[in-house]
Amino acid sequence: MSKAFEKLQQIDKEIILLEHTSALLQWDQETGMPAMAIEERSDQIALMQGLAHDRMTGAEVGELLEQARSEAGGAGAETVSGDGQATGAEDAALPPEDDPRFFSSAFLRLFGRHYEREVKIPRRLVTELAQTTSRAQAAWIEARRADDFSLFQPHLEKIVALTLEKAEALGYPEQPYDALLDEFEPGMRSSQVEEVFADLKTELAPLVKRITEAQKVDDSFRRRGYPSAGQREFSLKVLRDMGYDFDRGRLDESAHPFTTSLGGNDIRVTTRFHEDDLFSAIFGTIHEGGHGLYELGIDPAYHGSSLGEGTSLGIHESQSRTWENLIGRSLPFWQHHFPDLQRIFPDQLENIDAEGFGRAVNRVQPSLIRIEADEVTYSLHVILRFELELALINRKLEVKDLPQAWNDRMEQLLGIRPPSDADGVLQDVHWSMGAIGYFPTYALGNLFGAQFFNRMQQDLPDVDKRIGAGDLLSIRRWQQEHIHRHGAVYTAPELVRRVTGEALNPRHFIDYLERKFSRLNVL
Amino acid sequence: MSKAFEKLQQIDKEIILLEHTSALLQWDQETGMPAMAIEERSDQIALMQGLAHDRMTGAEVGELLEQARSEAGGAGAETVSGDGQATGAEDAALPPEDDPRFFSSAFLRLFGRHYEREVKIPRRLVTELAQTTSRAQAAWIEARRADDFSLFQPHLEKIVALTLEKAEALGYPEQPYDALLDEFEPGMRSSQVEEVFADLKTELAPLVKRITEAQKVDDSFRRRGYPSAGQREFSLKVLRDMGYDFDRGRLDESAHPFTTSLGGNDIRVTTRFHEDDLFSAIFGTIHEGGHGLYELGIDPAYHGSSLGEGTSLGIHESQSRTWENLIGRSLPFWQHHFPDLQRIFPDQLENIDAEGFGRAVNRVQPSLIRIEADEVTYSLHVILRFELELALINRKLEVKDLPQAWNDRMEQLLGIRPPSDADGVLQDVHWSMGAIGYFPTYALGNLFGAQFFNRMQQDLPDVDKRIGAGDLLSIRRWQQEHIHRHGAVYTAPELVRRVTGEALNPRHFIDYLERKFSRLNVL
Repeated sequence: MSKAFEKLQQIDKEIILLEHTSALLQWDQETGMPAMAIEERSDQIALMQGLAHDRMTGAEVGELLEQARSEAGGAGAETVSGDGQATGAEDAALPPEDDPRFFSSAFLRLFGRHYEREVKIPRRLVTELAQTTSRAQAAWIEARRADDFSLFQPHLEKIVALTLEKAEALGYPEQPYDALLDEFEPGMRSSQVEEVFADLKTELAPLVKRITEAQKVDDSFRRRGYPSAGQREFSLKVLRDMGYDFDRGRLDESAHPFTTSLGGNDIRVTTRFHEDDLFSAIFGTIHEGGHGLYELGIDPAYHGSSLGEGTSLGIHESQSRTWENLIGRSLPFWQHHFPDLQRIFPDQLENIDAEGFGRAVNRVQPSLIRIEADEVTYSLHVILRFELELALINRKLEVKDLPQAWNDRMEQLLGIRPPSDADGVLQDVHWSMGAIGYFPTYALGNLFGAQFFNRMQQDLPDVDKRIGAGDLLSIRRWQQEHIHRHGAVYTAPELVRRVTGEALNPRHFIDYLERKFSRLNVL
Repeated sequence: MSKAFEKLQQIDKEIILLEHTSALLQWDQETGMPAMAIEERSDQIALMQGLAHDRMTGAEVGELLEQARSEAGGAGAETVSGDGQATGAEDAALPPEDDPRFFSSAFLRLFGRHYEREVKIPRRLVTELAQTTSRAQAAWIEARRADDFSLFQPHLEKIVALTLEKAEALGYPEQPYDALLDEFEPGMRSSQVEEVFADLKTELAPLVKRITEAQKVDDSFRRRGYPSAGQREFSLKVLRDMGYDFDRGRLDESAHPFTTSLGGNDIRVTTRFHEDDLFSAIFGTIHEGGHGLYELGIDPAYHGSSLGEGTSLGIHESQSRTWENLIGRSLPFWQHHFPDLQRIFPDQLENIDAEGFGRAVNRVQPSLIRIEADEVTYSLHVILRFELELALINRKLEVKDLPQAWNDRMEQLLGIRPPSDADGVLQDVHWSMGAIGYFPTYALGNLFGAQFFNRMQQDLPDVDKRIGAGDLLSIRRWQQEHIHRHGAVYTAPELVRRVTGEALNPRHFIDYLERKFSRLNVL
């Protein structure tokens, strides 16, 4: 390794330490921080993010990068095309894994991409965004509790204005939203997402109609009152069965479930227990567990470097939604796990059996809350948010008109109208975090996930039998070998092609839904 | 305010934010961090401490300090004497509180003292100490669990070597230990402590003998099995009665109880619940609550600056030990609080009454564990540690011989010999944290505390009646007015003189003990 390369690695490690520390400050804020600590906490988070920004954009970094690239024989500097989704000069092809230049090429390519993005954002904007969003998260919690959008509105207005400023600073190929999307799903453009989502809407609308007309399922037992302690016990059990390692993680409670990396060996998940809805914690926990397994499965050689994290949010979401839906909402899964649940809640689940439970968790019905939506209508929730974000960023919609626009759009897409903003525009934490451009990755995750799962079924033809026998670890092993261990080495388009032999293809997701609901005798 | 002064304030604020962030990393490590996260956590803490050190010792700081001092008319630069305990050039007298120069004088004096200390310690030593002690804490926990000193020995050897290196870098008036003591109790010398402790030993030894010979008290009920949940309920109740504010703090569990500031409005305490010893959590919680009230009571104008913390560990300990002993072990306290405790544990406390309980918590008996020792023998535990530390630092004792020396010294001072290192040399967290020079402040706290309390009794002659009526808030108000609100503005010697009109006087502590035990009809 050259001196320049080693120095870059040191800088990268320090940035990762600052980011993980910032993640702890945020995790603590969401899980148990005393209410009045919020003001200084905002300053603490802003300082961490400001220091990380300083480190990345330090005067010497550009030069070190250039030097390390030239010493590495130009690795990470050439542009490739052919995939259709590689857009930047940073997406150079990597040598094979056993090539001695593999690690340095992967590192320089990724670090270079981060550097070239970060150096465009002024320090003032970084800390202002951090401070604004930290306060906005507290305001959002309060606004949701009080069901009063006006408490959150000024915060969101400031966030939209700062986000637009960021998009302009970053630059974009077609429209400002491209610059935002690129943070979460590197290499994709808004226009591609618009196209994919237009297809998806076309396919999903009639599917929702056919299923809801034919399906007869009673899931009322989910409201029978389930004490948190029992839900917690089952959540912990399922996480253990999935292979989640509690020596390297924790399960806590927060208003909005999330997964966060506080270190290569400190990957924490949260959930929330609603005593009047059994499904909320179960699928929330399995979902976050899927995110957790991704981070836990990364090659330890990448720990402490920016290669040591998931490569994109769409790929991340493919893992969480595969666990939540393709595995967690399958009949075989409940054939194995229902008895455990029934043992914990014998009274509430007295007249239910595994198959009945498995059918109930697949009830399709237009509903208000995204994270509790069934997997058929779910993507429509995402499309709604994407369209509203696009309108905000293109200045075709003002924040003050957002609740009305949300409700109108819900009515068009899902045929229902939220009775309150708490169950409508205020339900998600993302905008309060400044994560505009994030939502589309949820629906992309459904698509990536179905495509990967299709490939896995070719390698493990008896996957249903394994799930039914409680053998979730062999699924985890397949995912780790093909997806998790690579961390951020490959971009999402590279990874999809590498694993499945083809580019992103939404057909797999629609095929999966049709096959599943015809097996459930609904189609 | 001058530009230079404002810049120093900014630097100071950033250092405070880094220290509070580091405190969160440590709090999390002690309360719930996954086991395998320790390696990276050590790096994270080391980075925070390194960055704080960098900020404090930055090239511009010395110049800014000089400029700000000269613009402030030399405030914070003159030396005072007369108190006998002011030793450094930094201990200039402050103008009165209502003088417009008050704040800047106090700030420059304190910041200057920190700067002049920190600039002498090389960056490498700072991060090496942080990394070493973070790992040593995990090793200490393991060694204590396994009752195996050899697991901790190499860590402690490294800590002693690095600490000696630090003392040499800092310099000292008489002996290396002075430099260490100065970190925790600014302005005191080892020789002064030796002198005070010699007096204390002379007074305490016969007192312990007289009390233990005369005292007849049965406290066996404390071992009757007290479920953690009930202990937690009572702990929370007492903290609330003391005025501890849960919107600005939390109570958690850790192996060794502690109090930590994660922000001006984020002061957290921990305790530990031993089901086979009722007193452990009760007095641990009240003790930490006393520390918490000190930090919570600091004038908010000092938040985010180094003035916004307790002025010395001895003063800090005076507050915690006043709450634990002078208040928490008084008969009036239990006249009010025993019914609550009995309501929670009706079976275990069936035949006990408030007075019997109040007598039992004052049982004097030489015992193994410092933090559970009665208030008469307690200072002897501290003297033992001080003498061993002094021997280690003066290279008269090797770490490998420490367990033997500990046990021998216990036998001489308290007449008992630990059956295991877990209950002997491994019982305290401090050495694993690198906090050599810290222990003496515990016994100094007893002395400061009794002296303050004596003064408070003149202002509130009916203090016993107040305690018996459950009115703890008026005590807290007195402490806040005279001690807490000042934060680190006054040095410990200044504060003692300001509040009590005289210099540190150990006689108050001995008088208090004699009065108390004669009222209990033991003397």
